[in-house]
Amino acid sequence: MSIMVQKFSVPRGTSDILPPDIPVWQDIEAKARQVIQNYGYKEIRTPIFEETELFVRSMGHSSDIVQKQMLTIASQKQESAEEAMGGLSLRPESTASIVRAYIQNSLDRKEGLSKLFYIGPMFRGERPQKGRLRQFHQIGVEAIGPDSSHPYLDAEVIALSINILKGLGLKDFQVKINTLGSEEDKANFSKWLREKLQPDIKKLCPDCQQRFERNVFRILDCKNKDCKSVVGRLEIGYGHLSRQSQGHFDSVKKALSSLGIEYEEAPCLVRGLDYYTHTVFEITDASLGSQDALGAGGRYNNLVKQLGGPQVDAIGFALGIERIILALPKHEGPAAVALTAFIIAMDESAQSKAFEILNVLRCEDIASDMSYRVASMKSQMRLADKSGAPYVVIIGEDELKRDCVTLKNMEKGSQEAVDITNNNYSSLKTKLRERD
Amino acid sequence: MSIMVQKFSVPRGTSDILPPDIPVWQDIEAKARQVIQNYGYKEIRTPIFEETELFVRSMGHSSDIVQKQMLTIASQKQESAEEAMGGLSLRPESTASIVRAYIQNSLDRKEGLSKLFYIGPMFRGERPQKGRLRQFHQIGVEAIGPDSSHPYLDAEVIALSINILKGLGLKDFQVKINTLGSEEDKANFSKWLREKLQPDIKKLCPDCQQRFERNVFRILDCKNKDCKSVVGRLEIGYGHLSRQSQGHFDSVKKALSSLGIEYEEAPCLVRGLDYYTHTVFEITDASLGSQDALGAGGRYNNLVKQLGGPQVDAIGFALGIERIILALPKHEGPAAVALTAFIIAMDESAQSKAFEILNVLRCEDIASDMSYRVASMKSQMRLADKSGAPYVVIIGEDELKRDCVTLKNMEKGSQEAVDITNNNYSSLKTKLRERD
Repeated sequence: MSIMVQKFSVPRGTSDILPPDIPVWQDIEAKARQVIQNYGYKEIRTPIFEETELFVRSMGHSSDIVQKQMLTIASQKQESAEEAMGGLSLRPESTASIVRAYIQNSLDRKEGLSKLFYIGPMFRGERPQKGRLRQFHQIGVEAIGPDSSHPYLDAEVIALSINILKGLGLKDFQVKINTLGSEEDKANFSKWLREKLQPDIKKLCPDCQQRFERNVFRILDCKNKDCKSVVGRLEIGYGHLSRQSQGHFDSVKKALSSLGIEYEEAPCLVRGLDYYTHTVFEITDASLGSQDALGAGGRYNNLVKQLGGPQVDAIGFALGIERIILALPKHEGPAAVALTAFIIAMDESAQSKAFEILNVLRCEDIASDMSYRVASMKSQMRLADKSGAPYVVIIGEDELKRDCVTLKNMEKGSQEAVDITNNNYSSLKTKLRERD
Repeated sequence: MSIMVQKFSVPRGTSDILPPDIPVWQDIEAKARQVIQNYGYKEIRTPIFEETELFVRSMGHSSDIVQKQMLTIASQKQESAEEAMGGLSLRPESTASIVRAYIQNSLDRKEGLSKLFYIGPMFRGERPQKGRLRQFHQIGVEAIGPDSSHPYLDAEVIALSINILKGLGLKDFQVKINTLGSEEDKANFSKWLREKLQPDIKKLCPDCQQRFERNVFRILDCKNKDCKSVVGRLEIGYGHLSRQSQGHFDSVKKALSSLGIEYEEAPCLVRGLDYYTHTVFEITDASLGSQDALGAGGRYNNLVKQLGGPQVDAIGFALGIERIILALPKHEGPAAVALTAFIIAMDESAQSKAFEILNVLRCEDIASDMSYRVASMKSQMRLADKSGAPYVVIIGEDELKRDCVTLKNMEKGSQEAVDITNNNYSSLKTKLRERD
């Protein structure tokens, strides 16, 4: 009787990153780390989940993420109040978590400006589609602290995000910047927007009709063509900005120009989250189609206080690793880590010697492998070839008798006997290291 | 009126890894990667969550993890059947996920032996205590495939886990090994155990009285002293093993000895998961107290088939990073990445030049920073000192006039003027690179 066995699949909206795909991920992470560290940012790692309320409070109850996309952990059966796991959600982004860590660990009292970065998975319960995943990965930075109000910091953060992308080989991306102004400016702006949009409210898409009350800014970047046409007639400008806010924005633009950074001013760029103030920016790549953002960021000068911390300014960004991979030029990727040596035991009698040599090499940082299944020379050579190792070490009856191994150079096709009398492997190690 | 602001905390049983703690994590990960790659294992990354049923089927319905510790994602309000997120759990370990990926991607048809490793967070809804966390991190390997039955592979995997720990500076750990035998041997053994334990069932702790039916092996490693005393009288041996199973175990021990690995045979070592067959092992460190396992592993020759894949053997292990950190010798840890240069603008007029130089250096991979807040020389020198940068670049009125910067060597205490006429920073860059 055969039993039907259920096969399991990777959850929808998530992916396995298999060994052949790993080098591009490792390369992106290593290069991004290097650039980020050149700018003086230090790594921080926060947990995969946080109190749900932290995300609600930071991103805003009316944001799409909080409304529709939170992945929440179910309460456990036998839990006591003390052990409750309810009220926790997988992080949809990292800013709130890092601000929470900043406050909880009193980083404001430990350093003037905390420059932090992270690399890791984020989670949203979205309907999966191209460029929208339930588990995706971000590289981001947050600069938080008493000394973080200077417009040079806005320019630094934007320059850093661009230099990460350039360092990865991306060229055809566009940088859009905008300012939302202070909380007060935002209040003025939303009042002005509601007055202007009121007569046309019926022309907006159903989503935007709801947004009119709860999140009127989102109407500005709705992709529906009726909404675009209503918004297009509004003549969105910077009339709602205070002189100070306008001055900050002007200084940011001047600093960007001094760094030779090209950007487009986009008065309709608002981003979907409540916490942004002043500078917001987005980096897009047309090759990505409708989900074209490689990354985005902005200032959030009130969030730390709002989450119970001191009144300090802050700014950050996040780049999407999956989006970066989609946008990378399609020529050959980085090479995988390869073995240095593949060892072939020609028969069972040679196997224990081969195993001994294998372990000597591995302990000397010479990456090595062998097949423990004794098979024909031809089949083992095929495995050796597939492994990508530049050297093959062959041990058979003859080598055992003569206290040597045959060392084959796979590139040159040459081979030689290397002495291992008295288990002295130093010549062998030297020859294998020549290539390293 | 002041509004009470709720403060948020890191979820119980999880931790922030703050910048000062990061170097030890990065060091462990980098060194472990190097050793693992020396053994020919390749990285794989699977999602943070999987179908709950995958874990139930692999670890066994009666395992403590499945019974008490799964963190499951709550269903979403408005979800359609197609978009359902219910039935998903955060991974409590990685073996099941990797076997799922192995099967789904038909790796058995692509390579003889898949040697895979992972580093990442795992999750259990346990009552938090020292050494037991709700989010913890593991480094592990899995060797799966048609050519994975050789006892040398058991020895390789055990040697690899030990060499990772040694490479990290751990010395005082013990290796315990045991064999559970084949599925048939396990069935014989549990039958024998139940017969032997039956007369003493009332003397066992309440947990073990339940385990008697659903997971009798767990009684063998219960830490309750009454259970220990009942088990101690049983004379647990290897009588239940087939000749083939005994032969495999003998070969593993012989191979371990040939590698100079010291181990203790521990007939009561069973591990808590259904999927283990034949070799199981555990590495403990007495300094860790009651949760003393640094890591553990074993064979699982039937799991791939049981999860819907081909009949191939497999073996793996996982090490706990938090446990490793607890066991590390307490002397100085690895150094943090430091800046090369800290730039000081002595007044506002020098700031834009300083910002320009800062960006030139950063783009040349010379890690640099400055404070954007113009403050007294003394206060900026304090920041420079705190940054750990070996060089300070000072720009003031005088330097602007003379088209130079003052370069201060923080170790020697010496300083010199470096020419930057025509924005030619090559001498400055050369001097800063001398140290790198």
